[in-house]
Amino acid sequence: MQFTSGQRLDDGVLEREFTLGGIPGTLWTPGSASASEPVPLILIGHPGGLLRMYPRLVARARHSVAEGFAAATIELPGSGVRPGSTAAEQARADLRRAMGAGEPIGDEIIDRLVLPLVDKAVPEWRAALDAILSLPEIGGPVGYSGGVISIGIRLAVVEPRIAAAGLFAGSFVPRAMVEEARQVSIPLHVLLQWDDEGNDRQRVLDLFDAFGSKEKSLHANMGGHAGVPQSAGEDAARFFARHLK
Amino acid sequence: MQFTSGQRLDDGVLEREFTLGGIPGTLWTPGSASASEPVPLILIGHPGGLLRMYPRLVARARHSVAEGFAAATIELPGSGVRPGSTAAEQARADLRRAMGAGEPIGDEIIDRLVLPLVDKAVPEWRAALDAILSLPEIGGPVGYSGGVISIGIRLAVVEPRIAAAGLFAGSFVPRAMVEEARQVSIPLHVLLQWDDEGNDRQRVLDLFDAFGSKEKSLHANMGGHAGVPQSAGEDAARFFARHLK
Repeated sequence: MQFTSGQRLDDGVLEREFTLGGIPGTLWTPGSASASEPVPLILIGHPGGLLRMYPRLVARARHSVAEGFAAATIELPGSGVRPGSTAAEQARADLRRAMGAGEPIGDEIIDRLVLPLVDKAVPEWRAALDAILSLPEIGGPVGYSGGVISIGIRLAVVEPRIAAAGLFAGSFVPRAMVEEARQVSIPLHVLLQWDDEGNDRQRVLDLFDAFGSKEKSLHANMGGHAGVPQSAGEDAARFFARHLK
Repeated sequence: MQFTSGQRLDDGVLEREFTLGGIPGTLWTPGSASASEPVPLILIGHPGGLLRMYPRLVARARHSVAEGFAAATIELPGSGVRPGSTAAEQARADLRRAMGAGEPIGDEIIDRLVLPLVDKAVPEWRAALDAILSLPEIGGPVGYSGGVISIGIRLAVVEPRIAAAGLFAGSFVPRAMVEEARQVSIPLHVLLQWDDEGNDRQRVLDLFDAFGSKEKSLHANMGGHAGVPQSAGEDAARFFARHLK
């Protein structure tokens, strides 16, 4: 992991960009990190495109740091400056066409869109964890927060350092991930926008039912994909505070 | 409304029992009520049986008072010291028999069990509101908290003084109440125990979808009917603080 730039935000948060095997990422740590105990880490999930997503990512990271965590994210395969794949671009084009035509989104498209992304991204997030957790100012445990929900599911299954996950059910979920969810056992806080145009509500309810975790909560709110109410963010923050501290 | 007894609880909360047209009830107010501004009111819903439910009711009331509310409840028709009806007892017996036999609970039983209760209880809660809101130490607005969820739905539709409702979906819901729910427009916080043995999960999801409110949240947790986690109670308290203050 090589830090490529760093700056203090106006609230004292230290924001550092890094690359790891050619993958760009960002790490946010408390301003007074060097003087204090190692802090737990929250991985900030997102749909891809660090630059485009920056305003929302930094807002979430600042909240996490204010709550006493470090926060980190990396770019997804095929997004931002990372090379795309013909197959992924074709799947996205098929999805857009189907949504534009008002057709139901077939499992075949969802599988092509999501499963290769999960297979490729999850080892990258784990490698990022190795690097970030080697820093003296970062301790454990680790939480995963946000989407892509299928990446969060796979991480929860394969990565024992992830102790809790706050998952945003705002993307299409392959049927295979519903099955995989049965293997998840960590505490979960699942956020669903009831009228989200970018997911399938019944699939999310099936997914929530499938999770093997003894402790899991589903918080559904109104307002479409981008309309998550402020109170939902506050509830999620309390979830992480309960489980990572 | 006639107060029949009163005591200070160890945290200073004033607990007063009353009767209103032969219906027993309890009112909890802050210890220092006489010296301060009128406080908003939370109606504490329950499945019937004030004496049997007392430990849970007083715990909820104390939380509400600690958050700056008054709290009140009244006995349901046919519960506790109030005379039962042959029809209600028959419906309860039919429900127990069906549940004991592991049969699906038919809408016909649910209708007989719940609809007459709603029709009778709601005017009583409204009369209690008239009496309680005439006390100088109680102001508005008013929230309804808990079950019976169908009583909460009807109150939210017909009683304009109810400004927000935190509804516990822990009882069977008649199909007619799902339709009635479309008329509800106040902010709602709906609590569902995902594996509750005493309701129908799909009916609750249909109900949540039907509510006409622009602002509504569904919080689903694991743990069966009686296993509501502490964090869910805290989330509900924040909901009332946002909407009644």
